[in-house]
Amino acid sequence: MRNVKLLVEFDGTRYHGSQRQAEDKEPTVQGVMEKCLERLLGEKTPLVFSGRTDSGVHALGQVVNFKTTCPIPTERIPLAYSNLLPGDIRIISAEEVPLDFHARFSARGKTYQYLILQGRSVFWQHKAWQLEEKLDLEAMHEAAELLLGEHDFSSWRAQGCTASSPVRNLWQLSVEQRQIASHQLIAITASSTGFLYKMVRNIVGTLVAVGQGKLTVKDVEELLQKRDRTLAPPTAPACGLYLVKVDY
Amino acid sequence: MRNVKLLVEFDGTRYHGSQRQAEDKEPTVQGVMEKCLERLLGEKTPLVFSGRTDSGVHALGQVVNFKTTCPIPTERIPLAYSNLLPGDIRIISAEEVPLDFHARFSARGKTYQYLILQGRSVFWQHKAWQLEEKLDLEAMHEAAELLLGEHDFSSWRAQGCTASSPVRNLWQLSVEQRQIASHQLIAITASSTGFLYKMVRNIVGTLVAVGQGKLTVKDVEELLQKRDRTLAPPTAPACGLYLVKVDY
Repeated sequence: MRNVKLLVEFDGTRYHGSQRQAEDKEPTVQGVMEKCLERLLGEKTPLVFSGRTDSGVHALGQVVNFKTTCPIPTERIPLAYSNLLPGDIRIISAEEVPLDFHARFSARGKTYQYLILQGRSVFWQHKAWQLEEKLDLEAMHEAAELLLGEHDFSSWRAQGCTASSPVRNLWQLSVEQRQIASHQLIAITASSTGFLYKMVRNIVGTLVAVGQGKLTVKDVEELLQKRDRTLAPPTAPACGLYLVKVDY
Repeated sequence: MRNVKLLVEFDGTRYHGSQRQAEDKEPTVQGVMEKCLERLLGEKTPLVFSGRTDSGVHALGQVVNFKTTCPIPTERIPLAYSNLLPGDIRIISAEEVPLDFHARFSARGKTYQYLILQGRSVFWQHKAWQLEEKLDLEAMHEAAELLLGEHDFSSWRAQGCTASSPVRNLWQLSVEQRQIASHQLIAITASSTGFLYKMVRNIVGTLVAVGQGKLTVKDVEELLQKRDRTLAPPTAPACGLYLVKVDY
């Protein structure tokens, strides 16, 4: 029995989230990946994901693992598996790991990046949040500084979150400008040992409200203290979010 | 009679170039745009492009113009026209210009950007040249410096080029790194009063060969002097090329 760890990227646009659903009517990343894995290995094998991602959320470095007795050489898996998968899911690499490795329970941290396009473009459709109005980066940066570190993030915790505690340690929250050709992008990067449900998109929604001048940095400080999701600005759209890295 | 200048972006992936063909079997950007313009204006109206782009080449700032007696307000054209166009073509802006403005003949310069992804990704398919091996940016930068200024660019002029002279003035040719999420990109930007046929893609092909160590900077100097296309490395693929800006 081998335990195989995969690094996976996918364009989440046409998927109804990453997690397999009981009745697989709508395609999910896990559903599609398990179907192709069965073809690769010749046996039905469940995949363990580092965590679920919502509909339309993308991944550049999702980690999954599976156990198998199939003799396929590990180094051949990325290409062979990718060839079976649709063009919007790709296996970046594969490695054999100890049997007790578990993509979800062994994870020690995650990094997400959220992309905002300043303007509109056919090239960033479903790939970034397109906002025509110019955002005040300086203010967004200041608000982000406030949220760094260990806090009760109840104001950015979505309904349906099953975590036992709303306290998380956000050890990175940066707001940076990126230029590609004539496109101005804002990249918000967030790292933590663990995130609450929709926490990154909720934080981005708040930072953008600050960038738009709808909220002051002081308001964000109050939101942090009030621990009330209903007082905070709306969730940012899924299409701008990328799971970049899972640390083990 | 009004003369209307449009700023247009399009994803060239599914188009057989920008220029309308005699028999419109394969979709071209011009063919599709003229069909939709006829619906917008209620009359058949030819579009003048600043220049043609090849199959698979993209545009972030293509300029086209047309003359019309249709009373539609200029400021309503971008949205109304974009709504008729497929999702991969968008009118960024429209303005009324003097009757003697001609998108091609009035152009005084153009800027292209070529994107190379260092690695592979489903997100950059058809949008960048994907090269897994690391390129030597320093050497590419040095070679680019050599090509700056006025030269006979015969070694980077494709067959079928109808320009009367192979001399062009390349007043910008930069090689820069860009990072978006976990993706490393190399952006090569080229500006000139005018380009020979496939000149940018041919120059990129040579710069990449330098970056791969297949060619030295000295070899590029010789290519410049030998004025022989058959001695230079192959043309870079179309999918990485973006027409960024046309100057008037």
